[in-house]
Amino acid sequence: MGVFMLSVDKQLETLLRGVEDIYVEDELRAKLEEGRPLRIKAGFDPTAPDLHLGHTVLLNKLKQFQDFGHEIYFLIGDFTGMIGDPTGKSATRKPLTEEQVQQNAITYKEQVFKILDPEKTKVVFNSTWMSAMSATAMIQLASQYSVARMLEREDFSKRYKTGQSISVHEFLYPLIQGYDSVELRSDVELGGTDQTFNLLMGRTLQKNAGQSPQAVITLPLLEGLDGVKKMSKSLNNYIAIDDLPGEMYSKVLSLPDELIWKYFDLLSFKETEELVGLKARADAGENPQTIKKELALELVERFHGPESVVNVENSAGNAINLGDIPENVPEIEISSDGEEELPIALVLRKSGLVQNGNAARDVLQRGAVYVDGEVVDRHYRLRKEEQKVIQAGKKKIKKVLISG
Amino acid sequence: MGVFMLSVDKQLETLLRGVEDIYVEDELRAKLEEGRPLRIKAGFDPTAPDLHLGHTVLLNKLKQFQDFGHEIYFLIGDFTGMIGDPTGKSATRKPLTEEQVQQNAITYKEQVFKILDPEKTKVVFNSTWMSAMSATAMIQLASQYSVARMLEREDFSKRYKTGQSISVHEFLYPLIQGYDSVELRSDVELGGTDQTFNLLMGRTLQKNAGQSPQAVITLPLLEGLDGVKKMSKSLNNYIAIDDLPGEMYSKVLSLPDELIWKYFDLLSFKETEELVGLKARADAGENPQTIKKELALELVERFHGPESVVNVENSAGNAINLGDIPENVPEIEISSDGEEELPIALVLRKSGLVQNGNAARDVLQRGAVYVDGEVVDRHYRLRKEEQKVIQAGKKKIKKVLISG
Repeated sequence: MGVFMLSVDKQLETLLRGVEDIYVEDELRAKLEEGRPLRIKAGFDPTAPDLHLGHTVLLNKLKQFQDFGHEIYFLIGDFTGMIGDPTGKSATRKPLTEEQVQQNAITYKEQVFKILDPEKTKVVFNSTWMSAMSATAMIQLASQYSVARMLEREDFSKRYKTGQSISVHEFLYPLIQGYDSVELRSDVELGGTDQTFNLLMGRTLQKNAGQSPQAVITLPLLEGLDGVKKMSKSLNNYIAIDDLPGEMYSKVLSLPDELIWKYFDLLSFKETEELVGLKARADAGENPQTIKKELALELVERFHGPESVVNVENSAGNAINLGDIPENVPEIEISSDGEEELPIALVLRKSGLVQNGNAARDVLQRGAVYVDGEVVDRHYRLRKEEQKVIQAGKKKIKKVLISG
Repeated sequence: MGVFMLSVDKQLETLLRGVEDIYVEDELRAKLEEGRPLRIKAGFDPTAPDLHLGHTVLLNKLKQFQDFGHEIYFLIGDFTGMIGDPTGKSATRKPLTEEQVQQNAITYKEQVFKILDPEKTKVVFNSTWMSAMSATAMIQLASQYSVARMLEREDFSKRYKTGQSISVHEFLYPLIQGYDSVELRSDVELGGTDQTFNLLMGRTLQKNAGQSPQAVITLPLLEGLDGVKKMSKSLNNYIAIDDLPGEMYSKVLSLPDELIWKYFDLLSFKETEELVGLKARADAGENPQTIKKELALELVERFHGPESVVNVENSAGNAINLGDIPENVPEIEISSDGEEELPIALVLRKSGLVQNGNAARDVLQRGAVYVDGEVVDRHYRLRKEEQKVIQAGKKKIKKVLISG
């Protein structure tokens, strides 16, 4: 059995806990019974690498597969992102450059590897095979699916009925997503329930290509802090996994009470018995805030480490006022690369407080960079061996040591 | 003015005579006023090179453009033909091989150059650019048109409403046809009224590509011998331009009387005054068969030469009985390539009586090959310098000379 310490039944029990749907359980069982590492696919949008707790529902499930010895294919769907909207009608869909895609991939990795084991995760880009595809092959793909079935996809159906335009190329994107499964020869694909149509496309195209079709596992969508809509960055109802400990903590405490148990079910790693205990306490009339604190502390610890938990209740807040120094600032050490002094813009970049030189210039010009509580401008420099608390905007703060 | 002897007004008068529709007349006028040879596009199906009088409505119009000094692009749409039906669901749409496409092109040329001037006609294949196209470019094409507008095309609309399947790739074919116009930078495209949607696609894609959009001229569809349905090979209601003189003659005479004037309008080159005279004779009670003979003789002369007209009334018949030798057999000379004798199968192929070796074997096995009125089998050989009347099936007969 090698790395597979658990029986198929035990694996299935864990893997199917909390999922919304599975197509088809018997096929997944048969694949697990083969005793080989399965190829697990999950696709991610290249344009939005700011991961939030909604994403972690999926990432946690991937982690379970990984813990059982299976291989994760973290697929970044950069091909369609690099096409953008060729008609130029949509200002929000500018083509990504190769460089942006690579930068986003780095940001993705920084975040997902807080959950997944980098050693057992293959980060792949669908541009690898799609950029080389011919129009002929694209047409052959398109011949494998009907217009009527495509229009059954919920969003297409709604737009068609209400007279909102759908471009023909939008029919090609689900086919590309499905073809990624053929290319990866994936055994299992995971995604949100809103992705069901596209996930099942992989099964269709794999069957047509003579492959054994992937099992498809859909996961429930996590509502955001408003308690109504799907957690998403654009709705600003999210908890980012990069949020500072205090911010994360107070966001969880701001949750509507009726969402508590859904959040526990989808996000907590606590054992079932522990959850039963918490529910009993709530039923006995305990203040819901106390229950939420349990989840808040668990999440802060997971994403920021055990030491972050100690002071988090004191530093809780949605953002830090400019110039304030909270108690639990994450520390980072950067190299001076042999220089005696480093300009502040470089320090901001090296410490990850900003993503690039443009962002550094921008935040400095806004007067939003504080060193040990004092505003600084672009001429400010840090000396070797200095350690300073540096804040870049209201959400980013780190204690930076310039090592020699 | 160079070759352009006629004024723009005179050109337009001729070019727009008998057409169904023009999009947009002012644009065509402006193009003609530029005084350069315009690029005139007409697309043909690579699978059906058996041209009939229905096709000549279009070819005659192309000839008029050609006579005014414009360039004809005779486009064979072989790219989609070579893809065929990749799902294998349709037995009737097997992919064409490169060799078949080339063979069909030869057959096309033999026929169209009975009408068009080969010196002023460019035969082009859309596989030239489409085979090199990437999936990325295909997607960019597809982004330029909406699903809703695609579903407005009459046949798609009908199939969608009645629940008949439309494959997604069928939405790509009109885009490819339109893109051919971009690639050819065509000034004018001609086609049947049933092609209007696809012809206008060329305008859309050319505009998006920054080109001046082609004018589109649609031509009426010619009803077949049944007087009801569009002339087509599959309905067997057609007069092929390869039909033997007697066959062509008697088919025209079999026309329903009420189609006479439409046939004259679309097919005859007679001057308007002559047609007025014919109509007056018909109105005066002359036998319609006498009027039809005028058209029959005009068409036989056009496709078989003046000498064919002499005996055509005697040899009229829908087909030749096997072994019969009609009076006006077309003659052909083929080379023995230095051999003393040629096997009958090779002679059949070289003389164009069959299209390939398989067809030769087939017709020989059926006992349907006659030489000078006597049935022969596959062992039969012709000697150098011999001239024989060879019949292959009921419709193909030629007087073949084997030159040294």
